[in-house]
Amino acid sequence: MKHEIYLDNAATTRIDKRVWETMLPFLNDYYGNASSLHHFGTSIKEQIQESRKKIAQYIKCEAEEIIFTSSGTEANNFALKGIAFANRSKGNHIIVSSIEHDCVLNTCKWLETQGFFVTYLPVDKDGFIDLYLLKRCINLKTILVSVMHVNNEIGTIQPISEISKICKERNVYFHSDACQSFGKTPVDIQNIDLLTINAHKIYGPKGIGALVIKKGTNITPLLHGGGQEFGLRSSTENIAGIVGFAKAVELCFAEMNVENDRISNLQKKIFSLLNDTLEDVYFNGSIKNRLPHNINFCIRSLEGESMRLLLLLDEEGIAVSSGSACSSNSENSASHVLQAIGLNPFEARGSIRVSLGRYNTENEINYFLDKLQEVICKLKPIFT
Amino acid sequence: MKHEIYLDNAATTRIDKRVWETMLPFLNDYYGNASSLHHFGTSIKEQIQESRKKIAQYIKCEAEEIIFTSSGTEANNFALKGIAFANRSKGNHIIVSSIEHDCVLNTCKWLETQGFFVTYLPVDKDGFIDLYLLKRCINLKTILVSVMHVNNEIGTIQPISEISKICKERNVYFHSDACQSFGKTPVDIQNIDLLTINAHKIYGPKGIGALVIKKGTNITPLLHGGGQEFGLRSSTENIAGIVGFAKAVELCFAEMNVENDRISNLQKKIFSLLNDTLEDVYFNGSIKNRLPHNINFCIRSLEGESMRLLLLLDEEGIAVSSGSACSSNSENSASHVLQAIGLNPFEARGSIRVSLGRYNTENEINYFLDKLQEVICKLKPIFT
Repeated sequence: MKHEIYLDNAATTRIDKRVWETMLPFLNDYYGNASSLHHFGTSIKEQIQESRKKIAQYIKCEAEEIIFTSSGTEANNFALKGIAFANRSKGNHIIVSSIEHDCVLNTCKWLETQGFFVTYLPVDKDGFIDLYLLKRCINLKTILVSVMHVNNEIGTIQPISEISKICKERNVYFHSDACQSFGKTPVDIQNIDLLTINAHKIYGPKGIGALVIKKGTNITPLLHGGGQEFGLRSSTENIAGIVGFAKAVELCFAEMNVENDRISNLQKKIFSLLNDTLEDVYFNGSIKNRLPHNINFCIRSLEGESMRLLLLLDEEGIAVSSGSACSSNSENSASHVLQAIGLNPFEARGSIRVSLGRYNTENEINYFLDKLQEVICKLKPIFT
Repeated sequence: MKHEIYLDNAATTRIDKRVWETMLPFLNDYYGNASSLHHFGTSIKEQIQESRKKIAQYIKCEAEEIIFTSSGTEANNFALKGIAFANRSKGNHIIVSSIEHDCVLNTCKWLETQGFFVTYLPVDKDGFIDLYLLKRCINLKTILVSVMHVNNEIGTIQPISEISKICKERNVYFHSDACQSFGKTPVDIQNIDLLTINAHKIYGPKGIGALVIKKGTNITPLLHGGGQEFGLRSSTENIAGIVGFAKAVELCFAEMNVENDRISNLQKKIFSLLNDTLEDVYFNGSIKNRLPHNINFCIRSLEGESMRLLLLLDEEGIAVSSGSACSSNSENSASHVLQAIGLNPFEARGSIRVSLGRYNTENEINYFLDKLQEVICKLKPIFT
């Protein structure tokens, strides 16, 4: 029997059966438009409000501060463009880290064509921004700082509490992309003005996310129209997605501690076995402030060959990643994140990301580690 | 037993069981990220391509011209803002009809704050724009004309073939919002540069739509990021939504002729019975060039009271609309569409939209017409 071992949970996750069961009625019997005034519509509207409340409770924000979007990418575009266009009269300077997701970086590149100036903060070898440098970069024209909570490729957890405090003191909006952390590690929302979250990384459906927008934030909608989501995000609400998202959040928070211990043990096992069996392995990202779900490693003797490694593992039914899913299509370009932490393009293209999730078992990890050694043995003669 | 009669199919529709069954595997076993290079991802990518091809075949465009979005609202925002920002050096003038959906009109209002000029074309009493006036309004600065195919409130079918020819001759992009017509009546895409379509109006899921963008069109993405959808719409693809959309399109086109005859007969029945039984009824929108799915009528003696009528019908389990779903939340504002065709605010607030769909039967229509008379009798003494 062919194995199916999915170790790419940072790219996307399988919908939890309990989430799916919650969605089902809204793909069948409950199909009204939340804006309609008859009972087909009002019942949907109530469900949206319930879902909003449920998610807000875990974020410790007000329900009305949750604005549903179609994805993390939309929420990030909304945050950056929305703050930029609404606050142009105050200033046109934005600060982001250089290891943000492409949806932040490419939004910034576009904003640069619209008269905005963007500072891309460098990171150290572990992937952390320099708080002193951040302070120095904020000027009178700065309207927004955006730094992701957990990096999608290397798992490094940024000190967003400190960053948000700095922004608060300087009266600059702070946005954080928490797509990789939300539901996996607590987020301190206290000083954060805008937070991006999504469902398909936490065993919820694809096609739904949210931007948490603290009250009083001056932001322009990305989607104009019928005035849904308190006028901030128009479009007929994706009710099945919304209730699924809320259920996924509930499950993650209910199971977070136990699950993180379990995942942490799997992570430790991979770290130590790779260390013990491979002479020339090194790990990318912070070891200390790191999400337990992420392992990113480079094998020196296979520099530039992570793609081949990935495909050979795939033949064995094992799914890992050679970068973030979103940039993995561009086969020839090396990860901007790995280069930002100091790897050269060859090293970057020799790195593999293993991302763990709810359904991974110890047996799967053992199988993966066995197969990894086999595959490395196959590849090595070509290069040595 | 309480009746459940849904006559608000222009607001949203129930997912067809056959659509739902197509989606199911993608909410369970097939959960990869289409951008991943392992088999979990590549199998999803193939399914997206198959869905794209299927929809393209019915539109008679190339598969790569279908860009999936999260909704019609997103597609309309994308079309207008995308053309505006990409073609600013050519000109800053946009022409739309005054009876467009709020997502077009409110996008235009925002674009006006960004240095664009918008002409809102008036319509005649049937809801048609004046082609001669359109020609006169196009000037050297005009970059885009956007006129919806079928109006969501009054069902009037615009002559988009003629409009698109005029735009072609004048070298101006033409966009049409076909959310209300696609899958219900043929769309001649020949001279159209951009076409908005969506799924939840044609028995597909909420949260998925598309913008058809003809090759060579100069457009800026609304969502920047990982480069999905040929770099035109970044975001992890909503695979369940996409395959469901394609199935919904397939079913609509396969059954269009038979279904439209059936719906036409129901429409005729409503028209004639309302005419026969109510002295003071009149119909909004064109009688001749009209979607069979739409009936919009005003009862003179109940001017301003469509909301009360709607709620009384709702108590009987019957769902109709007093305007488009998207604007129906603003209880006090009268429909901009009905006012544009010449109704005063009282008349506009005395109008009811009945929109027919796949699951409506003749028995349901009989029941609705009976109950309507009862409800009118209840209401009339209050006003006469």
